[in-house]
Amino acid sequence: MRAAIMRNGSIVADEVPAPVPEAGEVLVRTLACGICGSDLHMLAHAHELGDSGAVDPSRDLVMGHEFCAEILDYGPDAARRLPVGTRVCAVPTVVRGGQLLGVGYSHDLPGGYAEQMLLSERLLLPVPNGLATERAALTEPMAVGVHAVEMAHLAGDEVPLVIGCGPVGLAVIAALRLKGAGPIVAADFSPARRRLAETMGADIVVDPAASSPYESWAGVAAASAEGRHVEVNPLSGERGLPQGVFFECVGVPGVIDQMMVGAHRGCRFVVVGVCMEQDHLHPLTAIGKELNLQFVLAYTPDEFARTLRHIAEGEIDVDPLITGRVGVADVASAFAELRNPEQHAKILVEPWRE
Amino acid sequence: MRAAIMRNGSIVADEVPAPVPEAGEVLVRTLACGICGSDLHMLAHAHELGDSGAVDPSRDLVMGHEFCAEILDYGPDAARRLPVGTRVCAVPTVVRGGQLLGVGYSHDLPGGYAEQMLLSERLLLPVPNGLATERAALTEPMAVGVHAVEMAHLAGDEVPLVIGCGPVGLAVIAALRLKGAGPIVAADFSPARRRLAETMGADIVVDPAASSPYESWAGVAAASAEGRHVEVNPLSGERGLPQGVFFECVGVPGVIDQMMVGAHRGCRFVVVGVCMEQDHLHPLTAIGKELNLQFVLAYTPDEFARTLRHIAEGEIDVDPLITGRVGVADVASAFAELRNPEQHAKILVEPWRE
Repeated sequence: MRAAIMRNGSIVADEVPAPVPEAGEVLVRTLACGICGSDLHMLAHAHELGDSGAVDPSRDLVMGHEFCAEILDYGPDAARRLPVGTRVCAVPTVVRGGQLLGVGYSHDLPGGYAEQMLLSERLLLPVPNGLATERAALTEPMAVGVHAVEMAHLAGDEVPLVIGCGPVGLAVIAALRLKGAGPIVAADFSPARRRLAETMGADIVVDPAASSPYESWAGVAAASAEGRHVEVNPLSGERGLPQGVFFECVGVPGVIDQMMVGAHRGCRFVVVGVCMEQDHLHPLTAIGKELNLQFVLAYTPDEFARTLRHIAEGEIDVDPLITGRVGVADVASAFAELRNPEQHAKILVEPWRE
Repeated sequence: MRAAIMRNGSIVADEVPAPVPEAGEVLVRTLACGICGSDLHMLAHAHELGDSGAVDPSRDLVMGHEFCAEILDYGPDAARRLPVGTRVCAVPTVVRGGQLLGVGYSHDLPGGYAEQMLLSERLLLPVPNGLATERAALTEPMAVGVHAVEMAHLAGDEVPLVIGCGPVGLAVIAALRLKGAGPIVAADFSPARRRLAETMGADIVVDPAASSPYESWAGVAAASAEGRHVEVNPLSGERGLPQGVFFECVGVPGVIDQMMVGAHRGCRFVVVGVCMEQDHLHPLTAIGKELNLQFVLAYTPDEFARTLRHIAEGEIDVDPLITGRVGVADVASAFAELRNPEQHAKILVEPWRE
């Protein structure tokens, strides 16, 4: 079958063996698969990950874990709850030989940049009738936002700040909006990304090149302090600001440290961006402000299913995020184009496309 | 008055002007003042802190914030609730000109390595009758442990691990014991510190040179899993371990990163050690395990007062921690000796001593 393959640090289009489903697994045809920022990071940093990853950069890897697919066949002893031909989404993991493997991040499980994949039968979710394939394919990245906001354990009186409005930041904004949290402050250097942030539900967008996101946040927080819980200094009696929850959605070294400098006392961070390099920070800054950092990953199966329903019900509109579609032959150039935030947010790979 | 002064990166004994209390302030005579690890850090790193600290390394600084003192006189417009001669402890902060200043970390407020200090009248706590001065002087460092454990928000079914058994780690162990948390696992390279950890309430002590504290923790956690809340893997049905709360009580670069490698999924860290240098870590490790880091500082006035009561009631026995007493002239050598964990835990400065 045709696939876009990570090989020796590049993306190349080539033939790979079609996968064969084992017990508990389903063979599917990929209909659409989004290109994730983590895949760009993986291409850039796979050789640095060493033993910490399941990926051997000297071997071929077919990435792609944000997909909508169609059932082709079942492996042995299947329950066959869904008929062949059903469109499905799924959490991109398979338990094989007692090990949890990632679809698109394992050498044994080709991802959605190939014509066919293997999924877990028990994780299959049928795409609701009438939901377009490309919208369903956005379930995975939007579930990342839903999970990040769940892990923020919002009490309802916080003012959120989203640093970085790539697909991760946009998913967080959509999930915050869905929760009714706000006003939502969001920052990105790219005008196109700031426009998308507004479309997805940000109330105030900030260009960090023009003004400090932290000062903007403080202004918004002060203006919305009325009726919210705020800390009162026991010595001076001074009223503080509503609590901030700052979402790190960039994933490059130095951002957490910058956010620590900008944060107020007691601020909570949710680190959603996936930084694969060594990072540096100054603990004294975090200590002085008693900051809390919650690192988060992915989503639960329940959050994933809930996200698909939200998209199907029109409660999360993912259309503005989809900025391109390519076949297998053009995945390499799509990876390159995604480095320009003005041009693209989410490019879908359609491996059936010529 | 006589004082041990941080001057040009060294500790020297010299005369400094006696302080004069302003409104809301009290003049006290220092009876005993513990040498804190933060003071050792400050001596080593003051020149690196730049604008982030209130300390100018080119100016004299009299440190010392773990004290028991005696009231000598009051500033203007005082309430004079406590008679002159009363022995007191106090949170070492003073609000002056609308600014919160640290006693022992401000050029305007000499700390307990001097014969006299200024304290906030409203923060004074009388030492309960019969409580020895040197025990009362341990209120401040023990309150750090009480606060760290409060900030851990223990649900009661966690198994704590304390990394580093200097005075901070020992205070955390004492506070965990007071809460009834356990079994408490604690690690330190020093045999003397491990013995102190046991004395303060650690159930299992580990020498990291001989075995992994994280493996020891996992063994203890597995053995104590019965009857505790544990996570169950939704795919494999496998039962996890009780949740860990890992206390970082070392405060040097690299420790948080090491702990992240050793931690299990969902582990919570409380960072109590005060690292004043730039630190490095690998966010990918923290993300993959969805770790939570709570940085903590000091204590609330209420926690401080509660700690003094615990010591007075004999619920925290601080005697084993006190390993030396020096006059002003010997503070420099005490700083040097404190680098040897075999010899010392807490050295008290008694500025009245010849």
